[in-house]
Amino acid sequence: MKRTVFYISDGTGITAETVGHAVLTQFDSIEFEHVSVPFINTSSKVLAVIDQVNQLDDESDHRPVVFITLTNPEFSSQINRDCNGIIVDIFNAFVKPLEQEFKHPSSSVTGGSHSLSDRRSYDSRMDAINFSLVHDDGTSLQHLKQAEVILIGVSRSGKTPTSVYLAMQYGILAANSPLTDDDLESDSIPVYLKSFRRHLYGLTIDPRRLHQIREKRRPGSKYASLAQCRKEVQSAEEMYQHEKIPYLDSTAHSIEEIATQIIQDMKLKRRYF
Amino acid sequence: MKRTVFYISDGTGITAETVGHAVLTQFDSIEFEHVSVPFINTSSKVLAVIDQVNQLDDESDHRPVVFITLTNPEFSSQINRDCNGIIVDIFNAFVKPLEQEFKHPSSSVTGGSHSLSDRRSYDSRMDAINFSLVHDDGTSLQHLKQAEVILIGVSRSGKTPTSVYLAMQYGILAANSPLTDDDLESDSIPVYLKSFRRHLYGLTIDPRRLHQIREKRRPGSKYASLAQCRKEVQSAEEMYQHEKIPYLDSTAHSIEEIATQIIQDMKLKRRYF
Repeated sequence: MKRTVFYISDGTGITAETVGHAVLTQFDSIEFEHVSVPFINTSSKVLAVIDQVNQLDDESDHRPVVFITLTNPEFSSQINRDCNGIIVDIFNAFVKPLEQEFKHPSSSVTGGSHSLSDRRSYDSRMDAINFSLVHDDGTSLQHLKQAEVILIGVSRSGKTPTSVYLAMQYGILAANSPLTDDDLESDSIPVYLKSFRRHLYGLTIDPRRLHQIREKRRPGSKYASLAQCRKEVQSAEEMYQHEKIPYLDSTAHSIEEIATQIIQDMKLKRRYF
Repeated sequence: MKRTVFYISDGTGITAETVGHAVLTQFDSIEFEHVSVPFINTSSKVLAVIDQVNQLDDESDHRPVVFITLTNPEFSSQINRDCNGIIVDIFNAFVKPLEQEFKHPSSSVTGGSHSLSDRRSYDSRMDAINFSLVHDDGTSLQHLKQAEVILIGVSRSGKTPTSVYLAMQYGILAANSPLTDDDLESDSIPVYLKSFRRHLYGLTIDPRRLHQIREKRRPGSKYASLAQCRKEVQSAEEMYQHEKIPYLDSTAHSIEEIATQIIQDMKLKRRYF
């Protein structure tokens, strides 16, 4: 049994996709095929997408599921009326009740949530992304000073994707700094990081998983050997405990979960875009 | 008038936040204060967050708005019953109707959509993120061969954040390659990119905006001067047109919009995580 799922939006469709995936994850025995149809912001595009869905409905045994986020009320009524799919109308479901509660009409602005509505917040997000990229494995003091959080960990423990995600999703200035052999042998925070102690957050990882990841990068090397991975991970964890640095095992978690946990543990301020 | 908005989830809360922001963007004259409460996955945490919302409700003139994504039906009924906020229950609104349509019960798996459900898809996402970071401004042929899309553009036209976003959100292998002075003077695709022509996508930007961005980086330099920015942007655009390379002006768009447009124009395959 395979169902086609459409995500129809007048903007990027990211909201529709996010809701759709979250909801459909609850039906793990059904196989879904995803079709995103963004920027549906004219009458002719609305007609075309209705045709597309209805044609697929004619050809298949199961009605397609259609998640929509359309701020233009005419377009959304048209799809609700003429489209043969199962319509999940995200704005209609939630905007209407809030209008009553707020005693305030909604503005029906197209593609609001993922468009460029505010130049300043866009700039601060870009700055955060550039910050995380420039400071990848960097140790410039000037920049560590600006960081809201400094991720530390052995090579390939997930520092870089996590800092980029924190920047991209929440505009958080996240630097990261590797733990070298010297750092690990000394069992204490690297000297140049001591003054940033309260911004440090450690990442750790299952040594077998680390071994796998490093093998892909440098097959057969000492760097990738299980023995070396075990030694480094153990030293890093001992250092975190000894220095009372909060830390997290990234092995069984997604980037989103790791980032969310760090924000919570370090009481970081989310910025929304 | 300021409203507090809670995002309560048993996972990362990203779905609740995404829906919340999309919906509240429709009320642009109201000021909102956002509070995210992720990982609410035990009875005691549910009680604590209900207290938190109710206390805030007692102290303020307006009822708080509470977006919830809780897969445990007991927890969500408890919040619906005991919490004095305006509850927007995302899963209840959409999962129930789909259960009927699918004739299939939902699995009520906690934190499904942003957790680490599938190691393979996690790895391919990590690979894509690493790919975009390694190939930032890189020109290694071996790697360009693997790229699903190669972004080209003058320095600071938005290539890097866009490729990282494509990787992070959709697992797309996105490389990027700068256009140097030599490239721009020749009015044709750089030689080493010729064989990848069908993967090329150009970015352009308003010269005044580019000037601002570069000034922050190297104040007073020739590189940042408005004349230089004008010259480079004009040459790049002429080259795109002359070589029939699809391109986009990044000035008035968010990263999400740029990424979505590129996916559409290049018919790239989204991978979902």
